[in-house]
Amino acid sequence: MKIVKVEEFDLRREVEYGSAEQNEAVRTIVSDVKKEGDAALLRYTEKFDGVCLEPAGLRVTQEELQAAYSQVEPSFVEAISAAAANIRAFHLRQKRNSWMDLQPDGSLLGQIIRPLKRVGVYVPGGKAAYPSSVLMNVIPAQVAGVPEIVMVTPPATGGKAGIDPYILVAAAEAGVHEIYRVGGAQAVAALAYGTDTIEPVDKICGPGNIYVALAKREVYGVVDIDSIAGPSEIAVLADDSADPAYVAADLLSQAEHDEMASAILVTPSEAFAKACQAEVERQLAELPRRDIARASIRDYGAVILVDSVEAGIGVINKLAPEHFELIVEEPMAYLGLIENAGAIFLGPYSSEPVGDYFAGPNHIIPTNGTARFSSPVDVDDFIKKSSLIYYSKEALLQNGATIVELARREGLEGHARAIEIRLLKEGKAGTNNDNQ
Amino acid sequence: MKIVKVEEFDLRREVEYGSAEQNEAVRTIVSDVKKEGDAALLRYTEKFDGVCLEPAGLRVTQEELQAAYSQVEPSFVEAISAAAANIRAFHLRQKRNSWMDLQPDGSLLGQIIRPLKRVGVYVPGGKAAYPSSVLMNVIPAQVAGVPEIVMVTPPATGGKAGIDPYILVAAAEAGVHEIYRVGGAQAVAALAYGTDTIEPVDKICGPGNIYVALAKREVYGVVDIDSIAGPSEIAVLADDSADPAYVAADLLSQAEHDEMASAILVTPSEAFAKACQAEVERQLAELPRRDIARASIRDYGAVILVDSVEAGIGVINKLAPEHFELIVEEPMAYLGLIENAGAIFLGPYSSEPVGDYFAGPNHIIPTNGTARFSSPVDVDDFIKKSSLIYYSKEALLQNGATIVELARREGLEGHARAIEIRLLKEGKAGTNNDNQ
Repeated sequence: MKIVKVEEFDLRREVEYGSAEQNEAVRTIVSDVKKEGDAALLRYTEKFDGVCLEPAGLRVTQEELQAAYSQVEPSFVEAISAAAANIRAFHLRQKRNSWMDLQPDGSLLGQIIRPLKRVGVYVPGGKAAYPSSVLMNVIPAQVAGVPEIVMVTPPATGGKAGIDPYILVAAAEAGVHEIYRVGGAQAVAALAYGTDTIEPVDKICGPGNIYVALAKREVYGVVDIDSIAGPSEIAVLADDSADPAYVAADLLSQAEHDEMASAILVTPSEAFAKACQAEVERQLAELPRRDIARASIRDYGAVILVDSVEAGIGVINKLAPEHFELIVEEPMAYLGLIENAGAIFLGPYSSEPVGDYFAGPNHIIPTNGTARFSSPVDVDDFIKKSSLIYYSKEALLQNGATIVELARREGLEGHARAIEIRLLKEGKAGTNNDNQ
Repeated sequence: MKIVKVEEFDLRREVEYGSAEQNEAVRTIVSDVKKEGDAALLRYTEKFDGVCLEPAGLRVTQEELQAAYSQVEPSFVEAISAAAANIRAFHLRQKRNSWMDLQPDGSLLGQIIRPLKRVGVYVPGGKAAYPSSVLMNVIPAQVAGVPEIVMVTPPATGGKAGIDPYILVAAAEAGVHEIYRVGGAQAVAALAYGTDTIEPVDKICGPGNIYVALAKREVYGVVDIDSIAGPSEIAVLADDSADPAYVAADLLSQAEHDEMASAILVTPSEAFAKACQAEVERQLAELPRRDIARASIRDYGAVILVDSVEAGIGVINKLAPEHFELIVEEPMAYLGLIENAGAIFLGPYSSEPVGDYFAGPNHIIPTNGTARFSSPVDVDDFIKKSSLIYYSKEALLQNGATIVELARREGLEGHARAIEIRLLKEGKAGTNNDNQ
C-alpha cells in the first residue's frame, strides 16, 4: 500500500460503464422482451442460465419458500431476522406524513406523500447473491408502504432452476411479495415493460452485473431506477489514537469486494501510516480473498499523508467516499466539517461491516464521488409526492390580478385568461370583495 | 376536441428524445468543453448565439443586475416578489433536520442532512425565458441552504449579449449568486466539468431545448441533474357542477404551451363534455397562441367519457398527469383515491396557472406518466443525506458474533475479521461482558 502526499494523489477517478458491444447486446435483449414478452424472457433464460422453463415455472412457489427455511441453519434465520429488525427500526424513523398548510383565506396547500405501488428488486445469483442486499433493498420499500414488492433473481445454472435458500429466507424476512427466477437484462426489461407473467413495476432497484446495470439505464424513464453502483470504497481518517490492526482490517474488508474497490487511509501521522501499511500486508497474507484484495490495494489503495485531521477532512470532502471511518480522538468534534461522505462511521467500534449487515442504516450508498449530490437508499426512494392546491374563491379574487400580470409577461395569454374568466364572473357575483 | 370512451384512448404515450445526429452533436460539444474549457465555450457561443465574448465578459455584472430593475415595470417587481415570498414559504415547510437515534447501549444512529454545495440553473433564452421558472428552480435550492447558486442563460443573439431584464430581476429576487451569459449544451458542459471562468457544480437543473436536455443526460453521473421535462400536460376531471368555460380555459392554458402538450378532460357527463368541447372551440378562436393550442388539442387533446367520478379517478391514476384539476362536488372526498398526479388542483378556483405562478408549490412537475414514481421539485432535490453510525463498545461486543455470522455466510471473510479482531482484543480487555 503506497504512502503518498495529498498533492500526489488524484482525488477523482472516472469509471466508465460498459463497452459499445455490451450496450448493443443489452438494447437487443430489452427490445426483444418488450416486443415478445415471456417468449423472449424464457429464450434468454435458456441461453444465459442454461435453464429451460415454462411461463408457469417462472414464479417461485410458497412451497419453495417454506422449504428454504429448512435448508438453512436456525442461527442464520435468527441473525437475518435481528438484522431485519434493526434495519426496519432505522428506516421507520424516516417515514414522513402528508401535510397541509391552512391559509387564513381558506386555501389549503400541501404535499401528499404516498408509497410507490409496485417495486422490483434485482438480486444477483451465484457468488454475488448477498442476503444482506435483499434486506437493504426491500425493507425501505416495505417501510414506505409499497404494497407490491417483486424480486427477480437468476436460477442456478443447469440443474433444477433453484434459488439460493439463504436469499429466499432473506426475501421472506424482508417482506417480498412475489419472486421470479429470471435474471440479467431480460429480467430488468420484464420488470419495466411487463410480460404475461410479470406485471410491470414503477421502480427497479438492486445491484447486478454490467448487463443488469446497462439494462436499468436503458429502461430509465419508463420506470424509475436506483443509481448504478460503482466499485465499493472506504476512506479511513485516523490518527495515532487508532489501532493500526483495526484500521487495516477495515480497509481490507472493502478491498476484498472487488479488484476495482478502493481503500484509502488518510492520516496526519507518518508513524501510523507505516504501522498500518505493515498491518495491511500482514493481514493480506492470511485473507482468503487475498488476490482480489491485493489487486485492489495495489491499484486503488493509498495512504495519504496530511498535515492535520482538519486537512484530512478536506481530503475526505473531495473524495466523497461511499464509506468514511473517522477514528481519531473526539471524532464527534469533526462531524460539522464533513461535507461529502455516504456513510460516516465514528470511533474505533464502528467498523464498516457493522453498517453492512446490522446497525440499521442502509448499505446501499453512493459511490464514485456521487455522495456530493446523492444519498444512501432510504424510505424517500420509495415514495412519491403530489402537490396539493385548493385555492379559495377569496384567494383567487385577492391574487388573481398578480397572476394575470405574471402570465402576460411570459406571453402566455391562455394562462392569463384562465384566471381572468374567473375574476370576471366571480368578481361580479362576489359580495364583500373590493378587488373587482 | 374529440370525445372518446375510455377504452378507445391509449393512456400511455411514449416520447422519444433526440435524433442520433443531435446526440452526436451534443457529445462533441460536451467533450470539447471538457477538454478545452473557456476556449470551446466561447467558440460555441459565437457559433450558436452569434456573440463574440472574452472570458471576462461571460459573467453578468452587479451593474447589469441593478440596471435590470430600472428596465422593468415596478408592478412586475412587486408581482415577482410576492410570488417569490409564497414559493419560499411553501418550500420552507419542507426543510428537514438531521436526526439521531440514541440507543440504550450508547450507540448513535442517524442521518445528517446537508444542502448541496453548488447548483447550476439553466434558463432558456428568447421566448422561452420565463421568470417564473427562475423562481421555481432557484428558491428550493436557496431554502435548502445551497451556498452557491449559479445561473446560465444564453446571451441575446447578435447585439450586446444582453440578458432579458425580467430574467435578471427574477434571478435577483430568487437569490442567485452568479450569472453567466452562456447557453446550450456548452453551458451544461461548463457547469459539469468547470472551466477557468465557471467552477463546476454538483447538480444542474432547469428546462432547455433538446440540446440542453441531451447534454444534461450526457453529464449525468458527473453531476446530478433534474429530470428531463416532457411536454406539458393537464387532465381535468369535472362533473356537471363545473363551469365549462373555466374548464375549457384551463385546458387551453396548457395546450398553448406547445404543439405536443396534452389537455384531457375526463367526465361522467356527456352534456358537460359537449359544453366543454364547444367552449374550447369558442375560446380557441380568440387565443393569440391558437395555432399551437389547436395543434395540441387536435393531436393530444381528448374528452374521455367515464361512468362515474370514481371511474374517472381510475383513468387519472393511469394517466399520471403532470397537472390534475378535480372540479366536482366535494373534491376533497376523492383525495384518498388519487394515486398518481404530479400536482392536484381541487375545486373551481384552483385554476392551474395559480400553481404555475403564485400559490407556492413548485411548477416543475413530473411529466409523461412519471408521476407514478417521481415528484415535483422541492427542497429534497437540493439536499444530500449521510448515514451516521457511532457504535459503542458495548454494542459491538453484544452484536459482533451475529455480524460475523452474516459476513461469513456471504463469503466475505475480511468483513468477518474486521469485527472479530475487535471482539478478540476488546473482549479480553472488557470488564462486564459475557459474550467473549
